[in-house]
Amino acid sequence: MAKYTIGLDYGTLSGRAVLVDIMDGSEKASAVYEYPHAVMTRALPDGTKLGTDWALQHPQDYLDVLYDVIPRVLIESGVKAQDIIGIGIDFTSCTALPVDDCGTPLCFLPSYQNRPHAYVKLWKHHAAQDKAAQMTRIAQERNEAWLRNYGGKISSEWALPKIWQLLEEAPDIYDAMDEWMEAGDWLVLQLTGRRCRNSCAAGYKYLYNKRTGYPDRGYFAALDRRLENVVKDKLSSPVVPIGTCAGGLTQAMAHKLGLMPGTPVAVALVDAHVCVPAVGMTKPGQMLAIMGTSTCHMSLSDRELQVPGMCGVVEDGILPGYMGYEAGQSCVGDHFAWLTERCVPQSYYEEAQKRGMHIQQYLTELANRLRPGESGLLALDWWNGNRSVLVDVDLMGMMLGMKLETRAEEMYRALIEATAYGTRMIVENYREHGIEVNEFFASGGISQKNAMAMQIYADVLNMPVRIAGSAQGPALGSAIFGAVAAGRERGGYDSVLDATKAMSRVKNVVYTPMPENAAIYDKLFAEYRRLHDYFGRGENDVMKHLKKIKNSVL
Amino acid sequence: MAKYTIGLDYGTLSGRAVLVDIMDGSEKASAVYEYPHAVMTRALPDGTKLGTDWALQHPQDYLDVLYDVIPRVLIESGVKAQDIIGIGIDFTSCTALPVDDCGTPLCFLPSYQNRPHAYVKLWKHHAAQDKAAQMTRIAQERNEAWLRNYGGKISSEWALPKIWQLLEEAPDIYDAMDEWMEAGDWLVLQLTGRRCRNSCAAGYKYLYNKRTGYPDRGYFAALDRRLENVVKDKLSSPVVPIGTCAGGLTQAMAHKLGLMPGTPVAVALVDAHVCVPAVGMTKPGQMLAIMGTSTCHMSLSDRELQVPGMCGVVEDGILPGYMGYEAGQSCVGDHFAWLTERCVPQSYYEEAQKRGMHIQQYLTELANRLRPGESGLLALDWWNGNRSVLVDVDLMGMMLGMKLETRAEEMYRALIEATAYGTRMIVENYREHGIEVNEFFASGGISQKNAMAMQIYADVLNMPVRIAGSAQGPALGSAIFGAVAAGRERGGYDSVLDATKAMSRVKNVVYTPMPENAAIYDKLFAEYRRLHDYFGRGENDVMKHLKKIKNSVL
Repeated sequence: MAKYTIGLDYGTLSGRAVLVDIMDGSEKASAVYEYPHAVMTRALPDGTKLGTDWALQHPQDYLDVLYDVIPRVLIESGVKAQDIIGIGIDFTSCTALPVDDCGTPLCFLPSYQNRPHAYVKLWKHHAAQDKAAQMTRIAQERNEAWLRNYGGKISSEWALPKIWQLLEEAPDIYDAMDEWMEAGDWLVLQLTGRRCRNSCAAGYKYLYNKRTGYPDRGYFAALDRRLENVVKDKLSSPVVPIGTCAGGLTQAMAHKLGLMPGTPVAVALVDAHVCVPAVGMTKPGQMLAIMGTSTCHMSLSDRELQVPGMCGVVEDGILPGYMGYEAGQSCVGDHFAWLTERCVPQSYYEEAQKRGMHIQQYLTELANRLRPGESGLLALDWWNGNRSVLVDVDLMGMMLGMKLETRAEEMYRALIEATAYGTRMIVENYREHGIEVNEFFASGGISQKNAMAMQIYADVLNMPVRIAGSAQGPALGSAIFGAVAAGRERGGYDSVLDATKAMSRVKNVVYTPMPENAAIYDKLFAEYRRLHDYFGRGENDVMKHLKKIKNSVL
Repeated sequence: MAKYTIGLDYGTLSGRAVLVDIMDGSEKASAVYEYPHAVMTRALPDGTKLGTDWALQHPQDYLDVLYDVIPRVLIESGVKAQDIIGIGIDFTSCTALPVDDCGTPLCFLPSYQNRPHAYVKLWKHHAAQDKAAQMTRIAQERNEAWLRNYGGKISSEWALPKIWQLLEEAPDIYDAMDEWMEAGDWLVLQLTGRRCRNSCAAGYKYLYNKRTGYPDRGYFAALDRRLENVVKDKLSSPVVPIGTCAGGLTQAMAHKLGLMPGTPVAVALVDAHVCVPAVGMTKPGQMLAIMGTSTCHMSLSDRELQVPGMCGVVEDGILPGYMGYEAGQSCVGDHFAWLTERCVPQSYYEEAQKRGMHIQQYLTELANRLRPGESGLLALDWWNGNRSVLVDVDLMGMMLGMKLETRAEEMYRALIEATAYGTRMIVENYREHGIEVNEFFASGGISQKNAMAMQIYADVLNMPVRIAGSAQGPALGSAIFGAVAAGRERGGYDSVLDATKAMSRVKNVVYTPMPENAAIYDKLFAEYRRLHDYFGRGENDVMKHLKKIKNSVL
């Protein structure tokens, strides 16, 4: 009798479920539900205004996803509830919220409904940038050893800067919250009634280390005396390893969703990290790039090494038994969208429409006729700062080599190439610091949609690029973790490795480097690298000077 | 009885005539005729393909201008032929052609009609770049004294590289040509039947010096033995000073144009240089920028000094009695057109149309709301190389500071600012080498149409910018030279100074620097200058490397 799991993937604007066969990972049904409140950047539902760089979500949307997509995949697939042996969940991160002692979001309570700090802070809530900067500075002053595990810099997207901002701006909410929970863990709590903190988010976003725990009280007290006991008071639930079962589905939730009570629910993971098993990555030397508006780079190693500019190294953070390394590029697809929306003349749109193509498809077709180096253009892919390896939000974009003949498709290709050079910087940086990278996987929208871009990546990296088999990368990964939560006794798997071997899907699509292109890109990359270091490592801080001048005139 | 002259101005895409009153320079009529063949960059009329960087014109177009515009200004103004006392001509330069011993362009002859080298090479024919580079190198090796009068570098836009290219690629045409003539001088020949070479083009584009003549035979022989006698054989007509009369209109031409036979025709000038008297510039310390697709900077001095990166210093080259200095920016308005055509989304065009504005007017309105420094952008204005002060056609454009929020009007303003910084580099370079610049005039299309740009120039230069009175700058200058050709006896003037005093026109428009803007631009210019030197003076030759890579893949 075939058995199935459901993978739930919570993205920035919607949640989706896939129902897959655990024998081979094949997808039987999928459903998406868009968050009614989407991302709140200007005001709460009642009109209460938000500050600059805020980004909130409404936790009711997350529940509504469950109620919508799970019944739909059951109906669509015709699979019976008793054949669903497990559920896995992944979520954007750090996306988190304050809850009371029953696990109820404070924003559900009438007395907090008009209080922005009572809502979910989305990963891209950037209003705690000053807190992040202070955290980095104080960690440097105290010579905190753990800082090097995070590439030497705290991001405003992580948990502690957000909690600190909450404390400072809404101390009564800080006092009222029983716990600050990752949204993924909160959802597991809703499904199972059990509270835990997943080791993936804890490691990458909460500075938690499997061996040494969280940073010590002295560090938190140095930030703000009131934070001294933040771990004990506000992050109190135990950190639980990924690849384990968080608990069984509650009676009430099972009823509501049409599933069996007690169905095993896996410990949650971060959406990027969960993609790794989905593509079948199981060993050191492999790297997965999840390519969308931005890119996350996941890799595994046996060794814990300090690599400057990575986002984090976490033991068991991606797969049990390995050091998981994360790096990132803060702007990838966003570059192409920027160019397409802001720098492409109408005639291109008309021609695309005439051919029934999306504008980016059309630009790609034109750009694909160009040989490497033919445009004479070179760009730095810093339209939204640089995450790895420079970790500097103040850097800005650059393009060079424009002539009067320069056309939109040339700039489009130059931006794609620039993001590939940025990835190569990350790869070479790992190699220079002892982490091998010799196999490259890609998933995410760009990997599925843009063959030219993937060929450019293969040529620039001079490595074959393998494409993930499922367009639903993270959801398939969650389904794999659901099968592990079930365990062999219930028809699932006892290890992530076993589940991955059976269920992962890499397409037969492999982009192989073309030697003549790779040779040209070696030369172009040398130029990129020199400018990268010149503008990014302090030799010429013109971008920072321009930002300072800009701020002085506003 | 009022007297009039006609100024003929031959630009890159069209020729125009203005008919002016010699008492006060007021314009009575004007007419424009666009060259039917425009600029030939890809093929001859019969389909014969052209190489990369070629730019040719058809001399028949120049004659057709005469036949069209002169009758039209006569009709429009109602002025009688006998009241036209002189004609002046200016032309782009070095725009030149091979002719036979009758002055007939070789391309008119059936046996040469399919031969690219038989046509007019336009000033921006850049296919002789390697010849220009060799000429510079050999002049340096031979320590030729005259080289320093040209900023130390020979431009591919000048005559000798073009002639050398012709010799090398079409030796039979080299042998067949009786003379290589400037188009302006050729037109004077058509009008008067007299051959001469104007001292302005000879000085700036043919390395001719009033005191020492052309470079000596040894230099030409060092380039190529076959060039040893190029001056005697192919540049044989005498060099004649500007501000003199070349001859009277022939019977045949007078009949064809509806003018009186014998009407005095002035020695031709280069189109940029002829603008100087039109704005009333008559003394050292003044600079005129003629701003169109590119910009020429004219200034006068009592002293002959060697200034690196200038285009040339020529005695009597601009006004009799002074050392005339020329510098240039090879791309100014072309930047704005490039951005407008290639990087502006349709919504801007729709909004402009809704408001009944030209797209550049609309972009200007939006850009004008920005404060200096507000966009955070900085560009290098090298979309078409750099003429002064770097004299390097291989340099290319750069823009820096882009973010995902960056909009078209910000890039538009950044390009305008970049051209202003480029002008400031030229001004500061003169000052550093002993040529004073303390008054600034602007003429040409941009100076008339774009008040925001002119205010930016005033702020960046921290000098008042005075605007020329006539939208037809060069044509008015030619009309002034026409009045000098006539001489006082025929109702004109005996000197350029006298004619200038009566006929020049400066508008009452003066853009005065705003101190708070000038202070910000001082800071931004410091950043520009650093990047200018970094990319332009050999510290990072990335642009040359990119060009080399580009050429290797084509």
